[in-house]
Amino acid sequence: MKLSTRILTLDGGGPRGDGWSVYYRARDMLAAGEPVTMLCIGEHDRKTAPFILDAMEASARGGNTGYALALGQPGLRDAIAERVAAETGVPTERGNVIVTTGGQAALFASMCAALDPGDTALIVDPFYATYPATVRGAGGHVRTVKARPEAGFQLERAALDAAAEGARALLINTPHNPTGAVYSRETLEGIAEVCIRHDLWLISDEVYSGQVHEGEHISPRALPGMAERTLVVGSLSKSHVMTGFRLGWVVGPEAAIEAMRGLANGTTYGVPGFIQDAAETALREGAAEEAEVAALYTRRRNRAVAALAGSAVAVSPPQGAMYVMLDIRATGMGGEAFAMALLERERIAVMPGESFGEAAAGHVRVALTIEDDAMVAALRRLARFAESLREAA
Amino acid sequence: MKLSTRILTLDGGGPRGDGWSVYYRARDMLAAGEPVTMLCIGEHDRKTAPFILDAMEASARGGNTGYALALGQPGLRDAIAERVAAETGVPTERGNVIVTTGGQAALFASMCAALDPGDTALIVDPFYATYPATVRGAGGHVRTVKARPEAGFQLERAALDAAAEGARALLINTPHNPTGAVYSRETLEGIAEVCIRHDLWLISDEVYSGQVHEGEHISPRALPGMAERTLVVGSLSKSHVMTGFRLGWVVGPEAAIEAMRGLANGTTYGVPGFIQDAAETALREGAAEEAEVAALYTRRRNRAVAALAGSAVAVSPPQGAMYVMLDIRATGMGGEAFAMALLERERIAVMPGESFGEAAAGHVRVALTIEDDAMVAALRRLARFAESLREAA
Repeated sequence: MKLSTRILTLDGGGPRGDGWSVYYRARDMLAAGEPVTMLCIGEHDRKTAPFILDAMEASARGGNTGYALALGQPGLRDAIAERVAAETGVPTERGNVIVTTGGQAALFASMCAALDPGDTALIVDPFYATYPATVRGAGGHVRTVKARPEAGFQLERAALDAAAEGARALLINTPHNPTGAVYSRETLEGIAEVCIRHDLWLISDEVYSGQVHEGEHISPRALPGMAERTLVVGSLSKSHVMTGFRLGWVVGPEAAIEAMRGLANGTTYGVPGFIQDAAETALREGAAEEAEVAALYTRRRNRAVAALAGSAVAVSPPQGAMYVMLDIRATGMGGEAFAMALLERERIAVMPGESFGEAAAGHVRVALTIEDDAMVAALRRLARFAESLREAA
Repeated sequence: MKLSTRILTLDGGGPRGDGWSVYYRARDMLAAGEPVTMLCIGEHDRKTAPFILDAMEASARGGNTGYALALGQPGLRDAIAERVAAETGVPTERGNVIVTTGGQAALFASMCAALDPGDTALIVDPFYATYPATVRGAGGHVRTVKARPEAGFQLERAALDAAAEGARALLINTPHNPTGAVYSRETLEGIAEVCIRHDLWLISDEVYSGQVHEGEHISPRALPGMAERTLVVGSLSKSHVMTGFRLGWVVGPEAAIEAMRGLANGTTYGVPGFIQDAAETALREGAAEEAEVAALYTRRRNRAVAALAGSAVAVSPPQGAMYVMLDIRATGMGGEAFAMALLERERIAVMPGESFGEAAAGHVRVALTIEDDAMVAALRRLARFAESLREAA
């Protein structure tokens, strides 16, 4: 039986998606009992805090196990609105919020709200692995705009403007995965200008908004004229160590949120009430936990940058998120070949920059998600490996 | 800002979806403190069994709170495959199963696998409320085929055949919500014949498969030539009182399941691991619970039919599911007017047949989801109300 073209081409047609061969090879090696230091993915080594699990259990035991409202529980929607209003200064109320099955479903709902089948969405290369599938799942076409390493992976106004003609939406991510770039006010003003000129929806993935090592996170929804055209994607996965709970949200204009109600009914039928109660507790009582998580990644980022100083590996210290991007072009190898060789020879798994598009070729991404000393030791081995390649080249 | 045509037309364009005005009016009355007997929706009055909550808590406390695999945990996929193989006799393995965010996401994934934007899916009128949004969310067009009350709401081969030209998929539901019909072998053989002749995907929603009052549930995937073109949607919502957990699955050909992996990554990024562990426990240790739930609805169905015997309300005893469909055409009113009048005058909320399409006009659906005696008392009042209308007509 013939499957739809859409579902067969979601991942760009590769056998296991784009450029994830190193990750899958590392998983196979681990499954075969070989020791591998995994620095591949943005999964915390920390566990969800007990007070959040307590809240989930109390909710489920209390009977909140039935169908939830499609837009989310009023209390949680209020907590999200209050947080966003306090952080951005933009008036935000319950009607501006829909609770979703993780940030991923928030991205998908935003794409469905912006795009009709056949419409084009712009995404910034390098990009998070699921972005193309999210656009294509909504029936849209992907058009990439490169953010250059030489510009610190900031999205440049001229490049964006040149690509925007005929598009319906632009998806950005700040703080940025994989590069750790935090978009400056100048960058965001350029983005806003292009969005207004080309009448684009701006989908702003801000799931790392609390994880800023230096500088300041600015939400583009707060810029003049942008609240009416911006859909902000948020999540508790990274900030509150709740990756597996699948709890995210979209904040946007009330008409867009209301339209997403029907999509939620037709695609997921709401988010478990006991998870929503856990999320509300995380938001209302989790400030200390959130600060501790953010501090953990800043500390590791500083240690990672120090460990690689003076080596064959160039590092632009990331301003945010949970990763460090390494420039390994001095080795003469591409990111994919380097990462595969590193895995085979040193048993260290990192993500090739090519997994995230073309703009980060010659780079690898290191996730700061193992214990500090083991991470530093692995990075020193990685640096020595890069040096041996440079000398051989 | 212009929203996509797709998202604005998911529900058929009504302000709150198709024909849900009685339900929303009842909710408003309850919120205002007015007593209303709610017989509207398929939400259990029973709570999720403690042994299932125990399993969820043990899993979360044990640390299963990280990202889950897109296709689902191997143990749960095995448990689902074993159940389906045992119940249907069709060889079914892990590779035939994807775990989804409830039966709703299973329906959506199936539609995305079968349809490209612009393709047509057939749905059977009367239909479950979310079906049109699921088709339209996938960019598809909805074409309805009427199942007649005079045929016991079985889907007739001739009507289906006449509608099938040019379609890509057919969505059926047996046991059937809202009518309680359980498709006979003859009905299913007709469906299979038409699917094969017109090369249709068959999406078979079998979430009520364990709730059969009389007769036998047959999965069309077990008919000759059908396993390769059938996507079976299952869920624990109804069978194990887990509506709010959002745990469902698709069972189908391995190539289709594998293609859904990318869609899962792009739309939800998997199902919480602690919910999957709870589901596996429910499947492996929940036979007694499931039987008790099924017996509860059969008992209420029998009491409901008895309570209405000899009244102005005609009842074809449902063969399965959690509802009784009442034919109120003798009152001279349509289902929507009757239901609204019943709500205003008797404070009893039922769903108009018109909420489910056109074929069930002049009917109302009663959900068997309140305590037996209260249900019987409400049905007797409903019958007296119908008689008063018939006498006045």
